[in-house]
Amino acid sequence: MIIKTPTKFFLVSGSSDGFSLLNAFDGALLASGVGDTNLVRMSSILPPGCKEIKPRPASLPQGALVPTAYASIHSDVPGEVISAAVAIGIPKDATRAGLIMEYSARAEESIVVEQVRKMVQKGMEMRKREIKEIMAISATSRIVTIGAAFAGVVLWD
Amino acid sequence: MIIKTPTKFFLVSGSSDGFSLLNAFDGALLASGVGDTNLVRMSSILPPGCKEIKPRPASLPQGALVPTAYASIHSDVPGEVISAAVAIGIPKDATRAGLIMEYSARAEESIVVEQVRKMVQKGMEMRKREIKEIMAISATSRIVTIGAAFAGVVLWD
Amino acid sequence: MIIKTPTKFFLVSGSSDGFSLLNAFDGALLASGVGDTNLVRMSSILPPGCKEIKPRPASLPQGALVPTAYASIHSDVPGEVISAAVAIGIPKDATRAGLIMEYSARAEESIVVEQVRKMVQKGMEMRKREIKEIMAISATSRIVTIGAAFAGVVLWD
Repeated sequence: MIIKTPTKFFLVSGSSDGFSLLNAFDGALLASGVGDTNLVRMSSILPPGCKEIKPRPASLPQGALVPTAYASIHSDVPGEVISAAVAIGIPKDATRAGLIMEYSARAEESIVVEQVRKMVQKGMEMRKREIKEIMAISATSRIVTIGAAFAGVVLWD
Repeated sequence: MIIKTPTKFFLVSGSSDGFSLLNAFDGALLASGVGDTNLVRMSSILPPGCKEIKPRPASLPQGALVPTAYASIHSDVPGEVISAAVAIGIPKDATRAGLIMEYSARAEESIVVEQVRKMVQKGMEMRKREIKEIMAISATSRIVTIGAAFAGVVLWD
Repeated sequence: MIIKTPTKFFLVSGSSDGFSLLNAFDGALLASGVGDTNLVRMSSILPPGCKEIKPRPASLPQGALVPTAYASIHSDVPGEVISAAVAIGIPKDATRAGLIMEYSARAEESIVVEQVRKMVQKGMEMRKREIKEIMAISATSRIVTIGAAFAGVVLWD
């Protein structure tokens, strides 16, 4: 194994305005409580037996490299609504992996959440894996000048 | 060193339909045999002496973080042909790194494979590094409603 | 912790022509001295106490997995000017994280550097964290046929 397999997870989300698109993204990470870490993006599996950290950590070690499955979206179109969401399908069989899905769109938060939950259902059906529970988190923003929304599943140890 | 340097590799590819673009991508990963892992994308070098795992593993530990160089493409245009390919230039000098290239396009598989092989040749020429062998793998899909194609080089230990 | 937190960093940049967009990117990595490594992209924090390696290493171990925050841009529009830059805000308080920003555009290098420095200022303001120093590096290219520019902050140990 090259990198240790995570054993813990927690959900985060947030949105922000910003000076630039990347500053808005950075602000959304800060609002999510992961703004001073290094997110390493990955495709999107919850390892078997991975446990939720509750309550979620107020912060992680500064600069830590953190494997994260996330959705993000930014816009500089005033008035536009943007939303990002992630969902996890927790399997009934605790020896099997869970599935994380990410979705973002120029749309209302409720629409984006509904879609990402469906995506998890369909992905678990494709695996013929029964779902115990779907967890989801989301963020939304109505753009003033420049803004971003972020939602993620942080894997940790 | 922050992350261990991989010593093994194998090639994977697959394609799938799906409920959404991301579900199709997820399905292509499942068809490739890496659907229950966490791909960590990287730019695109085969470490010196890195050996192929043959036959390739039927699966990796569920949820493992897996450094992978990959090409992927998805489409929701019915009738469209999409193809993804990766190629590795294995150097004659086993003490030097090999080069991985990724290419995907709305085009026939043979065209995409030819292009990615040329990209490896040009990249190895740029390094003035003689090629022992070029390995390649690819996937293609003719879109019905929503589909994805994926090809990757998985690095492992 | 899943992945070790880096303790060292250095800045790199370069540009290149190439046979394809990805070959040009690969050439820009070679020109930057990180062409035979595996960049793992991350969002964009300098861990507290992370020290610059001076002079920067001529090369890293071939095939090493290297966490890097980077900006890159490529183009196949002859005559177009492309530029990429990264900047780091080093905090006065050495116990706090620094902030890395990335920016690239179809624009002159000086404009891109000015923008990325402002982005660091705004991001550090958002954190209410005083800046000791802003470090920046950039690359630019006027496209002949196909070209790329790259600038990055490489984290290391």
